[in-house]
Formats: sequence, C-alpha cells, structure tokens
Amino acid sequence: MNWSSLAVDLYELTMAQVYVKEGFTGNAVFEIYIRELPKNRGYAVYAGLAPAIEFVKNLRFKQDEIAYLESLKIFKPYFLDFLSNLKFEGKIYSLKEGTIVTHTIPLFAVEAPLPIAQILESSLLNIITFETLIATKASRIRGVSPGKLLVDFGLRRVHGIEAGYHVARASFIGGFDGTSNLLAGKELGIPVYGTMAHSYILAFKNEVEAFKKYAEEYENIVLLVDTFDIKRGIENAIEVAEEIKNAGKSLRGIRIDSGNLLKEAQRARKILDRSGLKDVKIMLSGGLDEYSIQKLLKKKAPADAFGIGTKLGTSADIPYLDTAYKLVEFMGKGVLKTSEKKETIPYLKTVRRFTEKGRIHYLIGKRGEELEGEEMLKEVYNSEKGEIEIPSVYDAKKNFEEEFEALPRIYKKIEKPAKIGVRLTSLLRGEIRRIKREIENGRNKN
Amino acid sequence: MNWSSLAVDLYELTMAQVYVKEGFTGNAVFEIYIRELPKNRGYAVYAGLAPAIEFVKNLRFKQDEIAYLESLKIFKPYFLDFLSNLKFEGKIYSLKEGTIVTHTIPLFAVEAPLPIAQILESSLLNIITFETLIATKASRIRGVSPGKLLVDFGLRRVHGIEAGYHVARASFIGGFDGTSNLLAGKELGIPVYGTMAHSYILAFKNEVEAFKKYAEEYENIVLLVDTFDIKRGIENAIEVAEEIKNAGKSLRGIRIDSGNLLKEAQRARKILDRSGLKDVKIMLSGGLDEYSIQKLLKKKAPADAFGIGTKLGTSADIPYLDTAYKLVEFMGKGVLKTSEKKETIPYLKTVRRFTEKGRIHYLIGKRGEELEGEEMLKEVYNSEKGEIEIPSVYDAKKNFEEEFEALPRIYKKIEKPAKIGVRLTSLLRGEIRRIKREIENGRNKN
Repeated sequence: MNWSSLAVDLYELTMAQVYVKEGFTGNAVFEIYIRELPKNRGYAVYAGLAPAIEFVKNLRFKQDEIAYLESLKIFKPYFLDFLSNLKFEGKIYSLKEGTIVTHTIPLFAVEAPLPIAQILESSLLNIITFETLIATKASRIRGVSPGKLLVDFGLRRVHGIEAGYHVARASFIGGFDGTSNLLAGKELGIPVYGTMAHSYILAFKNEVEAFKKYAEEYENIVLLVDTFDIKRGIENAIEVAEEIKNAGKSLRGIRIDSGNLLKEAQRARKILDRSGLKDVKIMLSGGLDEYSIQKLLKKKAPADAFGIGTKLGTSADIPYLDTAYKLVEFMGKGVLKTSEKKETIPYLKTVRRFTEKGRIHYLIGKRGEELEGEEMLKEVYNSEKGEIEIPSVYDAKKNFEEEFEALPRIYKKIEKPAKIGVRLTSLLRGEIRRIKREIENGRNKN
Repeated sequence: MNWSSLAVDLYELTMAQVYVKEGFTGNAVFEIYIRELPKNRGYAVYAGLAPAIEFVKNLRFKQDEIAYLESLKIFKPYFLDFLSNLKFEGKIYSLKEGTIVTHTIPLFAVEAPLPIAQILESSLLNIITFETLIATKASRIRGVSPGKLLVDFGLRRVHGIEAGYHVARASFIGGFDGTSNLLAGKELGIPVYGTMAHSYILAFKNEVEAFKKYAEEYENIVLLVDTFDIKRGIENAIEVAEEIKNAGKSLRGIRIDSGNLLKEAQRARKILDRSGLKDVKIMLSGGLDEYSIQKLLKKKAPADAFGIGTKLGTSADIPYLDTAYKLVEFMGKGVLKTSEKKETIPYLKTVRRFTEKGRIHYLIGKRGEELEGEEMLKEVYNSEKGEIEIPSVYDAKKNFEEEFEALPRIYKKIEKPAKIGVRLTSLLRGEIRRIKREIENGRNKN
C-alpha cells in the first residue's frame, strides 16, 4: 500500500501539538480492543497486523503535507518542525494474526512517545478493525461450508480499491481459498480464481461460440451458464465439454449466478451426471453469505464452490466492530476513563487463554504479573530492532485454521453463539479501584 | 489516490485475452446502474465521478505487474504485450455528480474497445458504488438535521484508509459540512474539524488542566466533557471559559460522546445558559445516524452539531448498493442478458427527468432518440480531448443541494419513502422485444 501519513484526524494533531508544547513526550501505551462483540458473533478473528506495521514503519510527513498543515493556520512552527522529522520510535505488541479473540482483550498495543502514539490512532484502528471484521466474517462462511472451495469475489462492491486488498487478505486468513483480485494476488502471493462474466457471453454471436473460444484458450475452465436460460446454458457447456475431450482437455466446472440457486444446482447436477460429467464442479455465486450458504447446504445443494463478494467484503450483516484505541498507561502510570459504557482498563497487559470444560476464557493482567501459560501479547516490532515476529499471511492462516479446528462448536454457531469469557486478575482489579479513587480525589481538589 | 491498475478481477483479463485473440476490439458500451434500491432508500445521490475518471486516466500496467501476470501461466505473450501498451481510449458519459437518481437509469457509461472497457469493470463499479452509497447516506442525515453542523468522523472505522477519503468526499457532496480527515481535507480542499479525545484528558493531571492547556493554544475550542463525569466536565469547561475571557478568547462548544445524549444535551444546555454561555454550542457524537438524530431532534435535543463516524462511513443500515456494470452495446448493436431478476436494457442511453404532480420519474431511451428536456447523461471525458465536464467537489455539492431542496418530501422519508419512477421510451421497449426474439432464434439455431 502507498499510504499517506496524513490519514489522520485533525484532533490527533491538535492534541499532539499541546503534548509537544507541554513536554508530554514520555512513553504512552495505547491499546486496540473490541468494546463489545456484535450480536451473532461468538468470537472474532484478529487480523490486520502486517499492514498496521507497514503503516507504522512508513510514518512520515512529506513536504506538501506539512505545507497543507501550515495553511490551516492552526499549527505552530515548533510543531510543524516536529512533524517534519517524525518517524516511529517505540514498540508494538500484538496477538498473533489469525487468533480467535473476543471483547475487552488487547489485540494490539503501541508503546511510544505520547504524540507519536496519538497520531497513529485513527489509521491503526482503521486497519485492524476492518481486517478483523472481515477475517471474522470469512471464518463464519468457512464454518458452515467445510470442504468447499471459497473464493472472495468482493472487489467490485467493497468500500474502495484498498478495501479489496484487505478483504482478500483477511478472508484468506479467515479460511477462504483465494480471491479474484489480482492486486491482492500479486501483493500477498495468494491464489487467484476467476470464471467469466455475462458480458463475455454477450460479445459473441451465441453462448456455444463464447464457451468454445474460452475452452480453446484455457485449461480447467469454469463456464457461466445463466446468461439466458440456465438449462440451455448447461447443455451448451456439455456440448463444449464433449468437444474439448478430443483435445485432451476437460471442463472443470460451471457457475450459476442467478435464479433459485438450490433448485438450479440440483437440476445442473442431474443433467451433468446424466451426461457422464460427474467430475464437473458446480460453483454458485450471487448475494451469498453464511446464512444463505448454511441453508443451501442443509438442503443438500450439490455445490462444490462458492464465489462470495458483497456480503463478505462489506460484512453486510454487521459492517463494523465497536473497537477502540485507548490510552492505558502514561509514563509508567496506569490511566482510565470512566465514561458511561466506555470505561477503559489501565496498563499495558499480559494475556492468557484457558479452556475449561469446553468453555474458553481469556485472562488479562498487568504486564509483569506472573501468570501460568504462554504470553499471547508479544512484542512484534521495535523501532530499533525492526520486525521481531510478524507472521506471513500463510502463517496467519495456519494459525487461524488450527485455532478454528479447536474452537468448541458452541462459539461457531452463526446465530446466538456462546461468547468467550474474559476475566481480570485480582491485581488488575485492585489497580482499577485504586486509580478510580485517585480520580475522585483529584476531582475534589479541582 | 495512487491506484494500481491491477485492481482488477482475474476474469476480466482472461476474457480480455480472448477478445484480443478473436479481434473483438470494436467499441463496446458498458453502463453502471443500480439494479434495485434498498428498502428505506427513496433515491440515491450519485457520486464518485471524479475519482472514477482519475482511475481511467491512470490505466497502465507496470512492468512488475506484467511480470506477475506472466508468472500465473495463464496469459499469452500477445496479450501481455497488449497490456504493456494499454491506456484508455474512448469516451465516458455520466450524470452530474450530486444528482438525485434511482434504480435502472445509467449513472456512468464507458464507450471503448471491448477489452479496455471490460478491464475497467470492477474498479469503476467499486468507486462509483461506494461514493454513491455514502453520498446517499449523508443526504439522509442532512435531511433530518437542517441547519445543524455535520462533520464526518469516520476515518477510524471505515473499510481502509482510502475509504476514509471517499467517505469525506461523498459525505461532503451529500450535504455534510466537513470532515476530521486531514488527507481528505488536503486532497479535496474541504473544511476540516476536530475537538479532542479522551486520551488527551487522561494525559493531564486533571480535566481542568487539560482544558486550560488546550485553550491557551487554540481559538474556537470545543471541549470534550465526558471523560469522567459529564456534569463536572461541563462545570470545568465553564471555569475555563471564564478564564479565557480575559484573554479575549471564547469557548466555542462542548462535545458529549457517551451516555444518554438527549438528557445530557438538555442538562448541558441548562447549565451553560445559567452561566450566561448561551452562545456555546453543543456537539454530540457516538454511534449516531439518521435514525437516532431524527429521534433526538424530534425530542428537541438542544444540539448544534453532530460528529458522525461509523454509521455514516460504513452506511451501516445497508452497507452496499446492488449496482451492476453491464455490456449494453457492442459494435453498434444493442445486447442484453435475460438472467432471472438480472435482465439488462440494451444500448447507450439518453436520460431525462420529469416532475409531474409532485412525483418524479426518469425516462430512458436509446441514444439519438429525440426527446424533450435536457440530456442528463453527458459526455464528460474523452481520451483525445481529456476532461470535458467533471465538476469540482464544491460544484457537485451545490448540484446536490439544489436538487435536494427541490426533492419532494415523500422521497426524503428515512423509512418507507416513495420511490422515483423509471419509464422506457417505446422505441427502447421495441428494441428489447426485437433483441429477445433474436436471442430465441439464435438459440434455436445452436
């Protein structure tokens, strides 16, 4: 990605200017977490780490950006100088991409001088929220369609060209097999898939001709059979399958993109089988998501593959996560806010996960506490050492697959799932009480 | 934007390769339209033209992109050569940005050699669908809050950094006053707004200190009063307002971001008024959209401004539009597909709009037909002449405002609105019948 560091909200810079002026450049810790999971989400799949680190590494304000900021007549020369020389200094902590997570636990934390950590707020929150949203959605679709080929077809309807990249990436981590998006294929080295559009058929004098010309050019073709009449389309595909046999080629599949997908798939399977084409796969597409795929498969729709676009790429049933990027520690002191329903938990954390009697819960404590089990929130990037532990997209996918395999079914239900629990250590609970008392006292002194 | 032309679905290139091989390089016309408007949308606000034209103008495959395509072992040397030398040749037709539109009518049309027009499918559909989605959402929020200041706060939760740019742009066209997003401010020259975050307050020893330091640095400040206790926060803001009076400064407003916004705004107004601060504005934020703002304002919430993020920037109640990019004409001949519920209408169109007895309808015909009224689908870009008529974002906004002012209220209702009608000319209806007969005959000949 070719991001501008100016992808920042105005208030982040106005706050940072005061910090710089006041000498508030000590280390701060901000963390990203999900406040509450939406209805119908028993868990989330954490994603977005590698692109977030890329953003952090490329933090730089260019000359024309500084000139723009100057033109706003809000920023002072000392702060524009500060921005001109800015680069990331500090540490990033993170869970491993592809981890099954829940509300409240820190996914990602930044430890850096306060102005720097503040300036990164909106961009980091953006990237991690969106990829986590989509990896979660993808995992739900994977959950209801074991063994099926799942391809991201979302580019055309997602929220911008860049969104197409994130959707391909996050859905691959969350259990998809590949994408139609070539930019994502190139940048991430993930498999790309494609069939043909109705416009292709319409450009030829008839459907058979269109199919034949495609078959001449490619191996493993998938023919789109619903431009005019689906039954006739399948018959035409069979005609072409017979013809190409002589050339040593075979028809890999047909795609149906309209009509009653259950009935059409059943009819297609019958026609293909009758013609001895039992190996020809059926791919379905058109407005699909985990709800409609679960219905199709419960009714034994003979589908081998699904192309899923809009409802995956916009996470259509719930297009956002209630995430936050919050200051939890400043110069070694834990901080919290007490806003109604938006309370925060102080300090850089330590994170563990336990499974007891088929139920999962996370335990979070204050960093440095000694707890059983493996630390899940690891230092992954450091401005001096560089990348310490950023998994590749394939590693993240593998991590997800192992975790998803082990995830109890009660959490995987696509409606009314169980929710993963979260507990705080007694030390951390004690700190929260202490800081709240301090706030009360501080207030009384105002 | 720094887009890669490789933001394309694999099938667009596999189709294009066959087109090139078969010499199908004659002019094709593809059009973008909305198949059906979602429930709760009586109209849509067309946006995305200028970025779409930017994408078209920058169509180029770079060396490393060609190398990637070669590595897939799908594409032949003749086609990779074709792509290496590709640039847009042809014409773009469009409605004016900011126009109130509906289903079925062409918003944007590409007339270009078939492979070129095909390759642009996903990217153009992406940009225009998303900006139209967001401009429409913004207009609904504007519709329920006349006279209020509306600011896009979406960057942190929208679908990628680029999405933040489109949201700022499209919401400005659709009636918003500005954005918090500095990148959008710089690129588009639109007003930027900001207040402060809870983290800012937490970095100081107490709220009053945080407020004072902000007031020292800036004019026209808006103080966030809900970090701890809202009533106390307002009192602290008033204390600071009194202090800065001596320095000739005044408090512009307070922002409330949590709790029961109606009750908190009412209480805040009372406290401020009692202190003689009748001019201090109240800005509300936190999970707002047209539904919650309508409720707040019906109950006379004394709000002057709204910061609206997530639900604007993801169009949360309906995060996509059912748009299509369809081949309608090839080498002068009209084409159509007859897929169930996805039928298309042939030919490059001519578009008119009429208002009769408070009802609006669009009339579409075959390009070249003589019809009363002004042509709305105009040639806006041409690879030889360059840009012919691409409005600035301010012009597009003005166009929207005039159209929205004139739009009958029945269409503006945010629930169960009336829908704008669409009629086809008798000539176009005749053409559809004729082409369908031809398809039937062609089929019988297979």
